[in-house]
Amino acid sequence: MREISKETLDALATQAIELPSWAFGNAGTRFKVFTTPGTPRTIQEKLADAAQVNRLTGLAPSVALHIPWDLVDDYTKLSEYAQDLGVRLGTINSNTFQDDAYKFGSLTNVDPRIRQKAIDHHYECIDVMHATGSEDLKIWLPDGTNYPGQGDIRGRQDRLADSLQKIYDRLGDEQRLVLEYKIFEPYFYTMDVPDWGTSYAHVTALGERAFVCLDTGHHAPSTNIEFIVAQLLRLGRLGSFDFNSRFYADDDLIVGSADPFQLFRILFEVVRGGGMEAGSPVRFMLDQCHNIEDKIPGQIRSVLNVQEMTARALLVDQPALRAAQDAGDVLAANAVFMDAFYTDVRPALAEWRESRGLPADPIAAYAKSGYAQVIVGERVGGTQAGWGA
Amino acid sequence: MREISKETLDALATQAIELPSWAFGNAGTRFKVFTTPGTPRTIQEKLADAAQVNRLTGLAPSVALHIPWDLVDDYTKLSEYAQDLGVRLGTINSNTFQDDAYKFGSLTNVDPRIRQKAIDHHYECIDVMHATGSEDLKIWLPDGTNYPGQGDIRGRQDRLADSLQKIYDRLGDEQRLVLEYKIFEPYFYTMDVPDWGTSYAHVTALGERAFVCLDTGHHAPSTNIEFIVAQLLRLGRLGSFDFNSRFYADDDLIVGSADPFQLFRILFEVVRGGGMEAGSPVRFMLDQCHNIEDKIPGQIRSVLNVQEMTARALLVDQPALRAAQDAGDVLAANAVFMDAFYTDVRPALAEWRESRGLPADPIAAYAKSGYAQVIVGERVGGTQAGWGA
Amino acid sequence: MREISKETLDALATQAIELPSWAFGNAGTRFKVFTTPGTPRTIQEKLADAAQVNRLTGLAPSVALHIPWDLVDDYTKLSEYAQDLGVRLGTINSNTFQDDAYKFGSLTNVDPRIRQKAIDHHYECIDVMHATGSEDLKIWLPDGTNYPGQGDIRGRQDRLADSLQKIYDRLGDEQRLVLEYKIFEPYFYTMDVPDWGTSYAHVTALGERAFVCLDTGHHAPSTNIEFIVAQLLRLGRLGSFDFNSRFYADDDLIVGSADPFQLFRILFEVVRGGGMEAGSPVRFMLDQCHNIEDKIPGQIRSVLNVQEMTARALLVDQPALRAAQDAGDVLAANAVFMDAFYTDVRPALAEWRESRGLPADPIAAYAKSGYAQVIVGERVGGTQAGWGA
Amino acid sequence: MREISKETLDALATQAIELPSWAFGNAGTRFKVFTTPGTPRTIQEKLADAAQVNRLTGLAPSVALHIPWDLVDDYTKLSEYAQDLGVRLGTINSNTFQDDAYKFGSLTNVDPRIRQKAIDHHYECIDVMHATGSEDLKIWLPDGTNYPGQGDIRGRQDRLADSLQKIYDRLGDEQRLVLEYKIFEPYFYTMDVPDWGTSYAHVTALGERAFVCLDTGHHAPSTNIEFIVAQLLRLGRLGSFDFNSRFYADDDLIVGSADPFQLFRILFEVVRGGGMEAGSPVRFMLDQCHNIEDKIPGQIRSVLNVQEMTARALLVDQPALRAAQDAGDVLAANAVFMDAFYTDVRPALAEWRESRGLPADPIAAYAKSGYAQVIVGERVGGTQAGWGA
Repeated sequence: MREISKETLDALATQAIELPSWAFGNAGTRFKVFTTPGTPRTIQEKLADAAQVNRLTGLAPSVALHIPWDLVDDYTKLSEYAQDLGVRLGTINSNTFQDDAYKFGSLTNVDPRIRQKAIDHHYECIDVMHATGSEDLKIWLPDGTNYPGQGDIRGRQDRLADSLQKIYDRLGDEQRLVLEYKIFEPYFYTMDVPDWGTSYAHVTALGERAFVCLDTGHHAPSTNIEFIVAQLLRLGRLGSFDFNSRFYADDDLIVGSADPFQLFRILFEVVRGGGMEAGSPVRFMLDQCHNIEDKIPGQIRSVLNVQEMTARALLVDQPALRAAQDAGDVLAANAVFMDAFYTDVRPALAEWRESRGLPADPIAAYAKSGYAQVIVGERVGGTQAGWGA
Repeated sequence: MREISKETLDALATQAIELPSWAFGNAGTRFKVFTTPGTPRTIQEKLADAAQVNRLTGLAPSVALHIPWDLVDDYTKLSEYAQDLGVRLGTINSNTFQDDAYKFGSLTNVDPRIRQKAIDHHYECIDVMHATGSEDLKIWLPDGTNYPGQGDIRGRQDRLADSLQKIYDRLGDEQRLVLEYKIFEPYFYTMDVPDWGTSYAHVTALGERAFVCLDTGHHAPSTNIEFIVAQLLRLGRLGSFDFNSRFYADDDLIVGSADPFQLFRILFEVVRGGGMEAGSPVRFMLDQCHNIEDKIPGQIRSVLNVQEMTARALLVDQPALRAAQDAGDVLAANAVFMDAFYTDVRPALAEWRESRGLPADPIAAYAKSGYAQVIVGERVGGTQAGWGA
Repeated sequence: MREISKETLDALATQAIELPSWAFGNAGTRFKVFTTPGTPRTIQEKLADAAQVNRLTGLAPSVALHIPWDLVDDYTKLSEYAQDLGVRLGTINSNTFQDDAYKFGSLTNVDPRIRQKAIDHHYECIDVMHATGSEDLKIWLPDGTNYPGQGDIRGRQDRLADSLQKIYDRLGDEQRLVLEYKIFEPYFYTMDVPDWGTSYAHVTALGERAFVCLDTGHHAPSTNIEFIVAQLLRLGRLGSFDFNSRFYADDDLIVGSADPFQLFRILFEVVRGGGMEAGSPVRFMLDQCHNIEDKIPGQIRSVLNVQEMTARALLVDQPALRAAQDAGDVLAANAVFMDAFYTDVRPALAEWRESRGLPADPIAAYAKSGYAQVIVGERVGGTQAGWGA
Repeated sequence: MREISKETLDALATQAIELPSWAFGNAGTRFKVFTTPGTPRTIQEKLADAAQVNRLTGLAPSVALHIPWDLVDDYTKLSEYAQDLGVRLGTINSNTFQDDAYKFGSLTNVDPRIRQKAIDHHYECIDVMHATGSEDLKIWLPDGTNYPGQGDIRGRQDRLADSLQKIYDRLGDEQRLVLEYKIFEPYFYTMDVPDWGTSYAHVTALGERAFVCLDTGHHAPSTNIEFIVAQLLRLGRLGSFDFNSRFYADDDLIVGSADPFQLFRILFEVVRGGGMEAGSPVRFMLDQCHNIEDKIPGQIRSVLNVQEMTARALLVDQPALRAAQDAGDVLAANAVFMDAFYTDVRPALAEWRESRGLPADPIAAYAKSGYAQVIVGERVGGTQAGWGA
């Protein structure tokens, strides 16, 4: 059993996990989207909910926006609104999966007009970034095909490279392009950015401010994700995480809920590769949607899971680990590693939270706060936010 | 290269593949449902579209209904309407995945009132069956949980057994209960009927008129599906197929499109196990939804894929295969098997179709028929059918 | 954080985990079997090593034998030898995968003489059981095929059923037949007992003393194993576990090392389903082979992993869990579940061990014992035990 | 149904598929290696067997060697021996998986002496290449770890990069380094080159004569392999294929036997990406080991499978496909694609073979040749070749 040191707590104090605005709206499967009272109707209400998470955990100082879901007329005003709530606007996420024009591709489409439309959408996102001060443009490319022969795999890559270059060239000097990959869905035969290798090949071709986004739910079964983390850190191209977890496909469950040990291994490689150090290019975000559980406590649970597991990763006795590794003592090395994982960090973190003016138990504090009751009472009428709006 | 014999053609002539009414409505992913002009707005229009498939292929004499999507006041009238179109009403599919009440389960719910509501829904389906003369009540149970601890796995099974018994006991003497299984989705941790073993255990407990439905898209990666087909036929409990295909999860692609050789192996086991013989309990159905391809030609392509692959399965030189198997000649046995698969049955089937008064090329005939243009012109206004209605 | 109660400790005190004799011999991949000094050359030396594990943990009172690897002339004498070491002989495992005759099948072979040879081998195993007092005959059937068409899937099942019946009928009244399943390997297209459904269908046909053996490493990717545990307990047919863990295929790693949370979920279902209660038919065994780690401490680590995780499973606050489940409070139910998992039970178990006259840290105690040095010195010459002998 | 054109036959006439010497020796699983009479005992006998495959198919003009399995004193003499048999020596494969020194890594080992030993082994391989005139040094790196914490993932990559650079720098100007990747086995937690992205990152760092080797059996379940083919061709880094097929893991089955349609899609991307054109860097090889089927006819079947499927890939009506793709006609594009796949090319290829002085049916010709009987009679005594020698 390991003791949490002051160094560990100092490292934890710098951790920030960005929340996705869309986590507070309704989400579901193709079969059913369950609705709940109190669901936000506007980006302002999403920000208010996100601010609750930050207020109770101190972990979530920024909120990612999704364009066009979070389109407003005045982003300066929205930024100020966020600041008043104690949060700031973060990554801008583009969306090319909800327009009929993109049925056969957006940045990869054979039709140059549709490609330009998709490029223009990203220019619009960059405009939003300038208005909000956002650093990252995140592109999750939903393009792909459903049937063998349907599209020209090679031609689609060439067009993608061209489209990405046009977007990248529009970025300001302090802005980054972060390219996410996903093995399948919404297309079921090919995806145009299915794996980290494809994302890596594209971002290295683009330039130094292009990075890979690793979404933990977007891999083939039995992929060793922490290896990819270590490799991308080594190559200097790990830009950000989209945290979530899954048992099967892109299940979008609470980070750490399906395989807590995997989350530990991932965060250990982040620590090992310098991803927690000042100046690291790595950003942490959640990207998960709550189908049946309550949304605000779901996000609180999520950031706490990341924090607790980061604490365990920081607890690993690195000199002892290195010594066992160098000696070829498999069982001893594994034991050092597991010792940190099995240590119950929760009491020490609760105490530390209180020392920083935060509730020891943020979930309980939320329940006591009455916030849920207030929003249920206030948010009557209007259209609940969801993926369609 | 094998020649198609008269026996093969005679066997093919008896093949019937039920179409799902919902294949003609809009479908998509949780990200986007693309709409198309000409999509049916009513069950009558769905039946009209299904009848086109049957008219051009002679393969699809019946249409499965989904309750409540296809609810009408008068099923006698609907049956007559179908008969006039040259088809009949087939399997009745229940639906317990689109009501807010079922968020935490339907037939497995801890709340006896919700269980009763779900049971009553199946009683209603049985009423429809009596009105339509349908033989099969198909239950795809969408119940499950998303998080470890969320539900009591064991208790849910016990309640499921109880609910199924109540439904089974209501069936008429000529009616069957067919229980489908699915590994995941819409729930992401447990499904209450995730595999053939669970379905088999339940149907054997119910009685002799309960069978397993095998949906080809509902298995874990690398599952040997034809083995399950052979086993269920041996155990006398294979009730029906839901045909479709997939590369990843429940992708709902056109049957035979992702792995034609797998479809061949499945149909070979059907033939081997007596599933093509008169009196066999096995029914063939499609259960696939077209996201981006045209719906009517998509269904035509699907039934033709099943027919062509059945022809190849029937072509296998069984005595030569048995001889090679018994001699332990691995390569020879595999060669006999592959010879049938690689034989191009299409020209002979086209000729045979013409000899029976059907178009040699049903896809081309559909294109020439002008039907697509007619429905685009006629089906203006109203609400296009989809999973929600 | 949960406190370990006296009831929990009492339940733990009854836990017994059988060790496989073959875990102490050399094992490896098809690419390489690494050898190590001190590896046993005889079953007597394997028993001596196994006894060390039991002496230090109090958890492993019996040792499973593998026939013919552990064939001796006099089993009465071997039993006495084991007793003197403080252990007893347990499950008898048959072996039909290392004789050239079984290339195309053993219990399923088309040749009746080869089937009889395989049946006779099991009769011989039953004779050993009578001599040793073993209760369980465990059959892992390695039969299968590598190529489509190579074998007749259906015929092989029929022959298997017949062979199993002959073996079952030979068992004594106190003896059980336990049938293991495995998705693939050593055959790569079909396995004749690939899944729990197949094993279940066979054992229910055999009779009341036939059970399913669940090997945790033998499933398709993303299979929910704890569901199968719950289902088999409900059906009264879970006979035993073969514990191990894996990231990919049948990797044979130390139980709990790849996914500790999965082991927790499995053991929770064991507790929930009565598998820890007196009179339960469920037996715990290890079946894992150490390729690169030291064998004796590897087995010590393994039984401790099972014990520690069982402690966590017993810690779950069942009334609180049930209340949250019944209320449909997904996050609260999951929190109750995770609270037990994240509780560090190691200090309390170390203390409890000492109170029972066992070392607080069995791994450290083994290192200090000098046993490893002794066997390296003594076991010189001869042939190290492995899968081939 | 498509007709085979003269252009297609001309393209096929240039196809060459390298055979692995080790395919003619014994191979098996960790459970059992079955032996057969007539198995070669020396590299000379392996070459003789390989020459039979080439004599009957005209498809396999070269043989890959595995060092040290195929070590001889005089490679000039061995080359002449091969030439007399009508074949030549091809790729040199290194082996760092069968020496006790490499238990914890070879090119990645923490011990610089062991790393140097592994580098020296590759220098020795390069010496062999100079003697044989081989162009390619193929490295399949078997390094990895079995347990979390066992090794330092990042440090292993850094050492690997350094070791590879030392090997690459030793290559002659006409020689290439080809780096294979594999998801798992012989290690079960991490592999040091697990995916195409890792191999690509290393070979681009090395220089222009470093390429990726794609082994079709080495991917996670549901990986889209043809996408990787298209991507690597686009990036100019696809060096060679190791062909085989599998249902589960690295099953090593006959290429095209598990999923013929996948092989078609792969070869279509090869054609599409210029991999069949003169000057392409892509080489075709088999890498499969026959466990239970006869070895020489197994290799004949394999090269014929590649040839037949290449013929189908060349048959695709590219202008029609492009037109349907550009029109967004999903079903028409797929139909063009499938038309080629379903065309039975076997009769035309048999005829063409005869026109070139080859047997129409190479498998039957082999059976008639009496070669099998001759080698069974001659190869008595000695040690049959296998992975260990």
